[in-house]
Amino acid sequence: MGILSNGEERMVVVEFSIIPLGVGTSVSKFIVPALKEMEKRNIKYEVTSMCTIFEANSVKEALEVIAAAHEAVFKTGVNRIVTMIKIDDRRDKKISMKGKVESLLSHLKKNRDECGD
Amino acid sequence: MGILSNGEERMVVVEFSIIPLGVGTSVSKFIVPALKEMEKRNIKYEVTSMCTIFEANSVKEALEVIAAAHEAVFKTGVNRIVTMIKIDDRRDKKISMKGKVESLLSHLKKNRDECGD
Amino acid sequence: MGILSNGEERMVVVEFSIIPLGVGTSVSKFIVPALKEMEKRNIKYEVTSMCTIFEANSVKEALEVIAAAHEAVFKTGVNRIVTMIKIDDRRDKKISMKGKVESLLSHLKKNRDECGD
Amino acid sequence: MGILSNGEERMVVVEFSIIPLGVGTSVSKFIVPALKEMEKRNIKYEVTSMCTIFEANSVKEALEVIAAAHEAVFKTGVNRIVTMIKIDDRRDKKISMKGKVESLLSHLKKNRDECGD
Repeated sequence: MGILSNGEERMVVVEFSIIPLGVGTSVSKFIVPALKEMEKRNIKYEVTSMCTIFEANSVKEALEVIAAAHEAVFKTGVNRIVTMIKIDDRRDKKISMKGKVESLLSHLKKNRDECGD
Repeated sequence: MGILSNGEERMVVVEFSIIPLGVGTSVSKFIVPALKEMEKRNIKYEVTSMCTIFEANSVKEALEVIAAAHEAVFKTGVNRIVTMIKIDDRRDKKISMKGKVESLLSHLKKNRDECGD
Repeated sequence: MGILSNGEERMVVVEFSIIPLGVGTSVSKFIVPALKEMEKRNIKYEVTSMCTIFEANSVKEALEVIAAAHEAVFKTGVNRIVTMIKIDDRRDKKISMKGKVESLLSHLKKNRDECGD
Repeated sequence: MGILSNGEERMVVVEFSIIPLGVGTSVSKFIVPALKEMEKRNIKYEVTSMCTIFEANSVKEALEVIAAAHEAVFKTGVNRIVTMIKIDDRRDKKISMKGKVESLLSHLKKNRDECGD
């Protein structure tokens, strides 16, 4: 866990996707144990069509969650998994899933207002 | 553009993220031109805290959109960009952003019902 | 194609990997047509255990190559492919595959000399 | 650590790249502490122009190494880092960096021989 210079608790935002190979072209049923593993650990996650996103207090904590999710998928009988992870770790300011989207949309709105779109 | 064996139009689901280097730690304002480039082309996109997701009729079309979005960010004065792309291209069944999430959540619900969670 | 401010031809360095789903756990034979597609276009590529890397004069050109490589893999009878791409596009200085590795190793050497490692 | 059904020790092959934001467009000097962190742990790694690749006995072990490498880069004064990771974890057969490249090149050679290229 980390504390920012302003005293706030640090957050990392993490995206991952687990791709099971050799179990057909419909793979979502194999991903279910990964989501359940996160729920067991009380991790609030966002599911999108291409990845799962969540917040953690540190990279170490985030990667432990993903290692457990990855391992859970093997228990369904899958023999090969490719897992991709992207970590956003910022230490001069607190970030969050909500805050990052709001920042982008507010810049988009400002640009539209200025351009008279 | 592609047609599936059942006559449906094929869709690819694509995720990308554009990371500008050397312009400070707050980068969302530099990403705005990428989103505007997509809007100019009438691409409906989903913004998440870690990536942008959209659908296209072919990989070629999807990558042309991303190349244009990537180029637009350079016009803000950025000198180096790392862009990541992930393509999901399925040809035995039509996929969509909505359909993929629904499939995963329905498998999760079914699993919960069976396990009595 | 792009020209840098110093008159040099711009280069982008691109990494990609193609993951065929539902065709077993041994997938390298399905990747062969992607490499042959690159060779047909006289693209010099580097194969690693996790990705293929090449240089191009523009993002547009690089993505056309990858779209063709991706398409070639479908011709082997694969029904679903996840393709990942990472683009490094720098415009204040010419980059190359060779130059990037040399820069990193020279910084590593300098650090070792300074630290007396 | 894992043992395969044939008694061999399991290996995972892992690729990662660390992207420091807001410290200029030349970033290789910031990556040096990540490589030194791996050397301190006696991890043999391969540096490419787009990523670093290494082998580990488990996903857990691999991710601990990457978390340490990521953390080391912050010590250079960087305030935001995006780190990408791709894991290849196969359990029906031992994989290695060397073995994966050899398998692909042998399939490519076989294809060329058959096609009379």
